[in-house]
Amino acid sequence: MTAVGPAGAADPAGAVGPRRADALRRFSFNQATAQHWPLPEVVAGCVEAGVPGIGLWREPVAAHGLARAAGLVRDAGLAVTSLCRGGFFTADDWRDDNLRAVEEAAALGAPVLVLVSGGLPPGSRDVDDARRRVADAIAELAPHAAAAGVTLAIEPLHPMFCADRCVVSTLGQALDIAERFDPGVVGVVVDAYHVWWDDTVYAQIARAGARIAAFQVCDWVTPLPEGVLLGRALPGDGCIELRRLREAVDAAGYTGPVEVEVFSAEVWARPGREVLDASLAGYLRHVA
Amino acid sequence: MTAVGPAGAADPAGAVGPRRADALRRFSFNQATAQHWPLPEVVAGCVEAGVPGIGLWREPVAAHGLARAAGLVRDAGLAVTSLCRGGFFTADDWRDDNLRAVEEAAALGAPVLVLVSGGLPPGSRDVDDARRRVADAIAELAPHAAAAGVTLAIEPLHPMFCADRCVVSTLGQALDIAERFDPGVVGVVVDAYHVWWDDTVYAQIARAGARIAAFQVCDWVTPLPEGVLLGRALPGDGCIELRRLREAVDAAGYTGPVEVEVFSAEVWARPGREVLDASLAGYLRHVA
Repeated sequence: MTAVGPAGAADPAGAVGPRRADALRRFSFNQATAQHWPLPEVVAGCVEAGVPGIGLWREPVAAHGLARAAGLVRDAGLAVTSLCRGGFFTADDWRDDNLRAVEEAAALGAPVLVLVSGGLPPGSRDVDDARRRVADAIAELAPHAAAAGVTLAIEPLHPMFCADRCVVSTLGQALDIAERFDPGVVGVVVDAYHVWWDDTVYAQIARAGARIAAFQVCDWVTPLPEGVLLGRALPGDGCIELRRLREAVDAAGYTGPVEVEVFSAEVWARPGREVLDASLAGYLRHVA
Repeated sequence: MTAVGPAGAADPAGAVGPRRADALRRFSFNQATAQHWPLPEVVAGCVEAGVPGIGLWREPVAAHGLARAAGLVRDAGLAVTSLCRGGFFTADDWRDDNLRAVEEAAALGAPVLVLVSGGLPPGSRDVDDARRRVADAIAELAPHAAAAGVTLAIEPLHPMFCADRCVVSTLGQALDIAERFDPGVVGVVVDAYHVWWDDTVYAQIARAGARIAAFQVCDWVTPLPEGVLLGRALPGDGCIELRRLREAVDAAGYTGPVEVEVFSAEVWARPGREVLDASLAGYLRHVA
């Protein structure tokens, strides 16, 4: 495979030196992409591969110990680009859990806490009410995030998750909420997998501008598996115009990290380092 | 189960007489809901249950013979409310196949031919180009539909089908295409399953007005099955505000049939008459 990165590196896994460092400058590896790779090994693998940033998840961080995890990534010189995730505001315990999530992001030095809003409450058909509850919860959470120096990033999830996971289904909807707040406090996540199908996505990315707090990539393949959660693909293996979306967020003023985040039973079955190398190759060829 | 229909029928399967006829006036049974019920039996079942309308599919009609099928439903006194389906405009043979679909709709007396646009061509990532091809194809097909007295009804499918089945993902997009034509020639389908998640759907229904050529209902349940096609539920068994959507299409001026159309492996495994009765009960209780 010949990578087509800005530095023209021939093989992203083999290229070395300043050109490679430049090509990977914005790359961040979301640890969920190698779901079963233990945190110390992910961190070591990223360092070895010259990856500058990592996206963390609360569960493996908690399993490792928050302070220990923070020290681990700090000592490795890795930037924590985001923490996944807060949200699920339609659950009863949303308040305490989200306050903890903000604290955890701050402790890890993560500038961004990703929020997945939650779906309809059990038995409910009132999607409008669920959406109001999400906006109200974010309003309540925002001062705490501001005090902690953490940006809340509302992530619209693909509409196929509206009922059970996230009633915020489009970038436009996420912006309708985010725009009520200071851009440093509440922003949005642009995740290619969730928004690529939307014929208004490029207009909404332009509208988002400085609200873009995170940009994530993976790819869309069919058939979707049962439950539709674990059917994503590595960048380049599906039908999403990833580079076009990356260029659009750049044109909107976004200069932050590009996180590769893949939920895939097939990818998760592979060794962590192999997944990281494949993520780097896909990023350089199809996104950078 | 106590049905709550406008006529106050206690049991839709048991109620008889003028009140029942009035309650079912707009009900249409899409034959795909009882996928394995042979056409003559569907027709007989509808007549027996006092159902005034039926939605047909091209494959079972062809299997029975077009002229024979047309005679069967006509002799039974059933109105054919729609024919599914034309479209798949990104396939090479779209032209001939859609011209035949228009002729079949006319032969059956179906006022509406439902169009499912088709997904991305194999290997393509260019969703914009696919959408242009859909609009171009409809422009080419429209004069033939007008001559045959058949309304082409563009059906937006849920965005989870964008890649492989239908690049028209929202009612707004469908209207953007339809509005280039005479409302009697090109309209839209409002299918609750495909549009319920959209926070702009009520505004788009109001915009649609006389463009609404068909209204279909079923319900959303999770988890979605592999391939996501056969995971729908009977009206009332899921989380969609079906009555609110029905009232919205009515408020937009729609007075046509309400088709129950359910793709479900579980429903398809049940006897046809049982499925029809459950559809009637769900319609009276949750839609009418």
